[in-house]
Amino acid sequence: MLDVIAPLVIQNTTKIVLVSLDGLGGLPRLETGRSELETAHLPNLSQLATEAACGLIRHVAPGITPGSGPGHLGLFGYDPLHYQVGRGVLEALGIEFDLRAGDVAARGNFCTIDGAGRITDRRAGRLATEINLRLTERLRKIRLPGVEAFVETVKEYRFVLVLRARARGGAHLAAGLSETDPQATGQPPLPVKALNPRAKATAALVNRFVTEARRLLADAGPANMVLLRGFDQLPKLPRFPEVFGLRSAAIAAYPMYRGLAKLVGMEVLKTGATFDDELATLREHWDTHDFFFVHYKDTDKAGEDGDFDAKVRALERLDRAIPEIRALKPDVLIVSGDHATPSVLAGHGWQPVPVVIWSRYCGADGVTAFTERACGAGSLGVIPSQHLMPLVMANALRLTKFGA
Amino acid sequence: MLDVIAPLVIQNTTKIVLVSLDGLGGLPRLETGRSELETAHLPNLSQLATEAACGLIRHVAPGITPGSGPGHLGLFGYDPLHYQVGRGVLEALGIEFDLRAGDVAARGNFCTIDGAGRITDRRAGRLATEINLRLTERLRKIRLPGVEAFVETVKEYRFVLVLRARARGGAHLAAGLSETDPQATGQPPLPVKALNPRAKATAALVNRFVTEARRLLADAGPANMVLLRGFDQLPKLPRFPEVFGLRSAAIAAYPMYRGLAKLVGMEVLKTGATFDDELATLREHWDTHDFFFVHYKDTDKAGEDGDFDAKVRALERLDRAIPEIRALKPDVLIVSGDHATPSVLAGHGWQPVPVVIWSRYCGADGVTAFTERACGAGSLGVIPSQHLMPLVMANALRLTKFGA
Repeated sequence: MLDVIAPLVIQNTTKIVLVSLDGLGGLPRLETGRSELETAHLPNLSQLATEAACGLIRHVAPGITPGSGPGHLGLFGYDPLHYQVGRGVLEALGIEFDLRAGDVAARGNFCTIDGAGRITDRRAGRLATEINLRLTERLRKIRLPGVEAFVETVKEYRFVLVLRARARGGAHLAAGLSETDPQATGQPPLPVKALNPRAKATAALVNRFVTEARRLLADAGPANMVLLRGFDQLPKLPRFPEVFGLRSAAIAAYPMYRGLAKLVGMEVLKTGATFDDELATLREHWDTHDFFFVHYKDTDKAGEDGDFDAKVRALERLDRAIPEIRALKPDVLIVSGDHATPSVLAGHGWQPVPVVIWSRYCGADGVTAFTERACGAGSLGVIPSQHLMPLVMANALRLTKFGA
Repeated sequence: MLDVIAPLVIQNTTKIVLVSLDGLGGLPRLETGRSELETAHLPNLSQLATEAACGLIRHVAPGITPGSGPGHLGLFGYDPLHYQVGRGVLEALGIEFDLRAGDVAARGNFCTIDGAGRITDRRAGRLATEINLRLTERLRKIRLPGVEAFVETVKEYRFVLVLRARARGGAHLAAGLSETDPQATGQPPLPVKALNPRAKATAALVNRFVTEARRLLADAGPANMVLLRGFDQLPKLPRFPEVFGLRSAAIAAYPMYRGLAKLVGMEVLKTGATFDDELATLREHWDTHDFFFVHYKDTDKAGEDGDFDAKVRALERLDRAIPEIRALKPDVLIVSGDHATPSVLAGHGWQPVPVVIWSRYCGADGVTAFTERACGAGSLGVIPSQHLMPLVMANALRLTKFGA
């Protein structure tokens, strides 16, 4: 679709705001039969839904539960099945590591092995982040020929390994590598194998890293080994600002979402830790950009905690911010999310997520509430997430006719 | 999609029941403006729809009327446009012939030709099944080099021809063959041509069979010739139990549907001739399988007969069985069908078919009736049939996240 859209793009001065409520969609609670959205008091979102075109967004495919990567790529207009991003790259983005083209990134676990080298705990008792910091310090001593090896703490037992070819005489790195994590205890970690001839040198380097790591961690405790998986390089994605002809800004308090926006070439604006900070950043940059991706994390956090009431409150807080955003008079205002995080699942869900698109030209439908059920009967129907951006562009009058 | 789903599959102990009402969907009767589903009294299906996610399933593509083969492959998660099964194979499955890998099957008609060899009746007056049995007996005398030729009565003027290479010194069989049936009277049957070089030997064998058949039937009456079409071999399908990680059982009183389930690798459970027998089989095997495909034929039969009232009664009979199925406490219960058979068409139709998916996590929508019109406004939207199984797997919590 991007190839169809790009040649149709025209320039104007319209302003677009996409507010993404992370983990937006939910499910009815058994006791009441009402979802988080149906329970919350959301006068401003209801008003917006009443004036706007409503529908449901499906991010990957029916029944598929999206991770944050595919969830956001879809919102940004990319088919998440076509543009896949490996776990290692997502972890690196999640800590805002400055990943560069050609780098190979992997997700690492600190783990424990017994005297015979068999895994006894894949997460080393979910060790504390302070211990992780101490262990990564040890691993940073590892030297490999022709590459720099970065070892970065993520959280608890998780870290990121990044290999970067040295500028002079550097190794040629490739990401087609098998994983060392057998995803089971009682087995030894697997050696990394090259999945194609180009990745042979990289496989040898990673195996050398693992051997060194085992030696350096032998007496470290509480972990004495590492597991590596999800080897990948930065994907080659069409750049969002060029495809859509939009001076594009991302406003997100959490690093993962800044990383995903950067991945598609958006400018990541400096902001603070709260949603109020994000709104201040939005106001501040209103004149310098055409498109604003504004990320709201609280809904997902409450859903992941399985805390229905907290998610209701997070929705109500967001609702109170809607008038501030509308006061800026965007030409197109979209409210949706990157995936469902139903409190009753205490995790991401596969359910499609409500969306409202408001503009002078959106056409109203019969929907008067911003809920899963109400939006399911909206005029947008149930659409793949990558169809959202073309609709947004159309509402911004930024697409010309297809065919004469 | 199967390639996307398979790596996401995880194991648990949830139970899934898919009830397929053959020829489920209908059309309004002129006199009342109400379809069969809208006319029938279906308290249990209405209750299920109220509690469940509803939608419409489209089996092949808009406007395409599915046969039983594509209809069921779609329900089982296979894109019916990608996985095509030839008529010969379907006819063999329909009589539960033990078709094996490499066999070439064709659909046969007994027909009549005049003195000049031109077809006068493509169905030989739709001769009776007893006569068919007598004629196939004659054809079984035909001997071909290197292959066994099976000639099996289907019904009336229809039979199946299966060629099977002998274990020792057998011919190499291939299915790329043109048809002998010109689909018109006044023309002679066509010789079979190989559509690719690998099928040359098979074409020669089939032409020899036809020559012999003409000789053996010359004085038989009321048919004196055969027409052959739909040559095919068993398709190589991904196996359903492995793709979805489900111990899968099919419960169907009719051979065609047992054959289709076997084609994708399901275990076909022995059952009786009625739907009550099927329910008894379901109860009996509840503990030994994860997934049950339960087939209900009466709706299609009534629709094919153009008998609106009989179809209404068939729906009401099925409705009364729903509590028995729910009493087993499946984790996921799906009710849908393999295609529409509107009574006003007295045959299969292209209309999408209602579907309900019930689980603890399905999310309710506003739909309170199991009808074409009501389900059209459901939260599932109008989905291709092959998207049903991923949704079912998600509702069974048997799929992990896609992307981190």
